[in-house]
Amino acid sequence: MRLIVQKYGGTSVGSAERIRAVAQRLIETQRDQCRVVAVISAMAGVTDNLIKLAHEVAPHPTERELDKLLATGEHAATALTAMAVNALGAKAVSLTGAEAGVLTDRAHSRAKIANISPRHIQELLAEDFIVVVAGFQGHSPEGETTTLGRGGSDLSAIALAGALNADACEIYTDVDGVFTCDPRLVKDAQKIDEVAYDELLEMAGAGAKVMQSRAVEFAKKFSVPFEVRSSFTRGPGTIATEETANMEDVVIRGVSIDRKQAKITINGVPDSAGVAGRIFSAISAGEIIVDMIVQNVSAGNTTGISFTIHESELARTEELLRPVVDQIRATGVTSQSGVAKLSVVGIGMRSHSGVAARFFECLGRGGINIQLISTSEIKIAVVIDEADAERAAQLTHQEFGLGRTTGARQSR
Amino acid sequence: MRLIVQKYGGTSVGSAERIRAVAQRLIETQRDQCRVVAVISAMAGVTDNLIKLAHEVAPHPTERELDKLLATGEHAATALTAMAVNALGAKAVSLTGAEAGVLTDRAHSRAKIANISPRHIQELLAEDFIVVVAGFQGHSPEGETTTLGRGGSDLSAIALAGALNADACEIYTDVDGVFTCDPRLVKDAQKIDEVAYDELLEMAGAGAKVMQSRAVEFAKKFSVPFEVRSSFTRGPGTIATEETANMEDVVIRGVSIDRKQAKITINGVPDSAGVAGRIFSAISAGEIIVDMIVQNVSAGNTTGISFTIHESELARTEELLRPVVDQIRATGVTSQSGVAKLSVVGIGMRSHSGVAARFFECLGRGGINIQLISTSEIKIAVVIDEADAERAAQLTHQEFGLGRTTGARQSR
Repeated sequence: MRLIVQKYGGTSVGSAERIRAVAQRLIETQRDQCRVVAVISAMAGVTDNLIKLAHEVAPHPTERELDKLLATGEHAATALTAMAVNALGAKAVSLTGAEAGVLTDRAHSRAKIANISPRHIQELLAEDFIVVVAGFQGHSPEGETTTLGRGGSDLSAIALAGALNADACEIYTDVDGVFTCDPRLVKDAQKIDEVAYDELLEMAGAGAKVMQSRAVEFAKKFSVPFEVRSSFTRGPGTIATEETANMEDVVIRGVSIDRKQAKITINGVPDSAGVAGRIFSAISAGEIIVDMIVQNVSAGNTTGISFTIHESELARTEELLRPVVDQIRATGVTSQSGVAKLSVVGIGMRSHSGVAARFFECLGRGGINIQLISTSEIKIAVVIDEADAERAAQLTHQEFGLGRTTGARQSR
Repeated sequence: MRLIVQKYGGTSVGSAERIRAVAQRLIETQRDQCRVVAVISAMAGVTDNLIKLAHEVAPHPTERELDKLLATGEHAATALTAMAVNALGAKAVSLTGAEAGVLTDRAHSRAKIANISPRHIQELLAEDFIVVVAGFQGHSPEGETTTLGRGGSDLSAIALAGALNADACEIYTDVDGVFTCDPRLVKDAQKIDEVAYDELLEMAGAGAKVMQSRAVEFAKKFSVPFEVRSSFTRGPGTIATEETANMEDVVIRGVSIDRKQAKITINGVPDSAGVAGRIFSAISAGEIIVDMIVQNVSAGNTTGISFTIHESELARTEELLRPVVDQIRATGVTSQSGVAKLSVVGIGMRSHSGVAARFFECLGRGGINIQLISTSEIKIAVVIDEADAERAAQLTHQEFGLGRTTGARQSR
C-alpha cells in the first residue's frame, strides 16, 4: 500500500466549504489504496489576525507565548479537517506537531526540526486512520510548543514524508504548479512538469514564491521528491526532484522577475581587505535583506560596490551607510529606486555555452539597458529599469522558447 | 504569602484592551504580596464561532475533535494574557489544562475533573511567575484534550483553588456580584455581600445566571469559598461560602424571575404507580428540560400533574406527550405559554415561620394570581402570568426589605 503525504495551505482550508473539499480529496486518495497523512496550515487570515492581536497586547510578544498562540491556528484547522473527514464516512484523527513526533530545537518562532518520531502516526495509519497533522510546529526537548517560521508547513510536510519514507509528497496550493514565468506577465507561460531542487531554489530566490527555500533545501538534503499542485483543480502539478541527466537538455527552466528593487552603488571604495565586510555588517545590523551584490573591477586602487535591496528599505539603508562611507573614505554613494531584477534559471546552462550572451543580446535587441549583472552556476540575473521589466520577461521567455510548449522540447 | 486564584470570563478578555487591563490587575495582585494563578476563558465570541465552523464542516462533529477545536480558544487567550503581563514588566507563563495538571474522565465535551496535580503550577509560582491557566479544559488518562462543558472555566478556577489550597478564589465577570434581584427589573436591587452555596445554587436554578450550578456544587463539596466580582470596576463583590449562623438572620436572600416559561397540565391521570415516570421519560427522551413539577392532590382515583418548560419547547413537548396521554388514559392536556416563575430564596426561611404566607399575601394584595406553587427547604417558587412578573418581583423585593440596604439588616 502506498503512503502519501498531502499538504494543504491556508487558502486550501480557507472556509468550511474548502475544508470539506480537502476532506473529500483525502478520502478519495485513501480509497485509491493509499495510506494518507495530511499536513494542514491555519485557515487563511487566521495567523495574521493572531499576530495582530499579539502586537496589540504586547509591543514585543514573548516568543514562547507567541508560538503557543500561533500554533492554535493549525490546531483548529486540523480538528476541523478531521471532523469533516469523519462526517463523510471515513476515519480521521488530528495530531498537533508534538503528538506527531516533530521534535525541534528551542528556537521559538524559527525552530529547526531536529528529529521526527513517526511511530504514533504509523500506528494510526495501520488502523486505517487518515492522520491530519498540524503543520508549522513541533515541540522542544522540554515539551514546549515551537513554530518553524513562515512557510513552515511545507517544511513539516517534506520532513514527515522523509521520516515516513512516503511514496509521494504533494504540496497543495492555490496555483497549478511552477510556471516558466508569472502567467500574469507572460500570457503563454507554461506549467513545468519537472524541476530540479536547485532550479526551484534559484527561482524562489528570484521572486517566484511557490515554496519557501527552507522547505526545498530540506527536500534536497534528504532527497524527498514532492509535487506542487492545485487544491482547486484536478490536473497534475510540477514535480520537484533531484536533477536527472535529461533535465540538462533544457537550457532555461524559467524566467523570474523581482520588482520594486533599489540599486545602491558606493563609489571609490579603497581596494583593501575588510572593507566590504564593514559595509554589509552595517546594513545587516539594520536587518535589511540585501539581494545581488556586485563588485566592479578596480580602477586604480579603488573599486565600486553595487547591491540591490527592496525599494522600501532605501532611505534606511542610505542612513545606515552614511557613517560607514565616511569611515572607509569612499568617494560617494549613488542610488536608484524603480529597478527590477530579471533572472533566468536552468541547470541546462551548465552544459550549454553562450546562454548569457544569448540572454544579453535578446535584451539589447529590445533596447533594454542592463545596469548590473550577477551569475551563479545555474542562474543569470540582471538589474533593469522596472518600466522595462514586463517586456523584458516576455522577450526572454520567447527567446528561450519557453512558451511554445512545456519546457522539455525547447532546447536547440 | 497568600495564594490567589482569579478567573476571568470571555467578556473580561474580550479585546486586546481588556486583556491588558486583566494583565494589569494580575500584576497589582502580585505586588500586593500574593502568588497569582489566573484562569482564563476564550475571548468573547470565539467559542461560538468555532462551534459554528464545526457545524459547517460536519453536522455532528466528532467529540474528540470538537474538544481539540474549542480548547484552542482558551489556549489563545492564555497566551495573549501571559504576553500582556510580560509586556508590563512582570513574569507570566501560560499553561494548557493538561500542562496545569487537570486530569478528567474521558467524557468529551462534558468531562468531569478527576484529579488535579498542581506540582507544575507550584514550581512556577515559587519562581515568581504569574501562572495563566486555560479554563474549561483538561486531559483524559490517555492524554487527549477534554472540555468541561459550558461554564467550565468557573469549575476550573474553583477546582484549582481547592487543589492549591488557595487563600482566595475570585471569579471576575461583567457584573458587580450577586444581587437581591435583577437590577434591570428592580431599581433598588442591592449587591449581596455574602451568600451561602445553597442559596446561590437555588438562585442559579431560578434564572439568576451568575455562575453555573456545577461550579457552585463543586465549591460546596470541597468547601472552596469564592468571590464573584466585576473585572470592569474595583469594588468588592459577593462572597459565596458555607452557611454561617448569622446568615439565618436574613429571611430572604434574593428574588429571581424566570421568564418565557410554559405550563402544561395533564388532567385525569390514573393515580397508580409508574405513571409519572412514563410521562417524564417521554419528555426527557426529547432532551427537553423540565423545571417545576407539581402533582395535585388526587380527586377520586385520578390526579393532575403540572410542570413548566421553556415556552420554545411547548409544541414539541405536546407532541411527545400525545401518545403517552393515550396510553395512560389521562383525560386531557392543557397548556399555557406566557408564564413566568418567581422565586424567593434564603436559608433563613428554615428558621423563620410564615415566609410562604407572607410571600403569597404580598402577591394577593397586588392582585397577582398564583397558578402553581413549589417549595424546597430554602426556596419558594410560584408560576404567575408573565405580564405580572416585573411588578410581582418589585412587590416581593419590597415586602422582604431587600432594597433598603444590603441583606444583613432586613430581618425582622
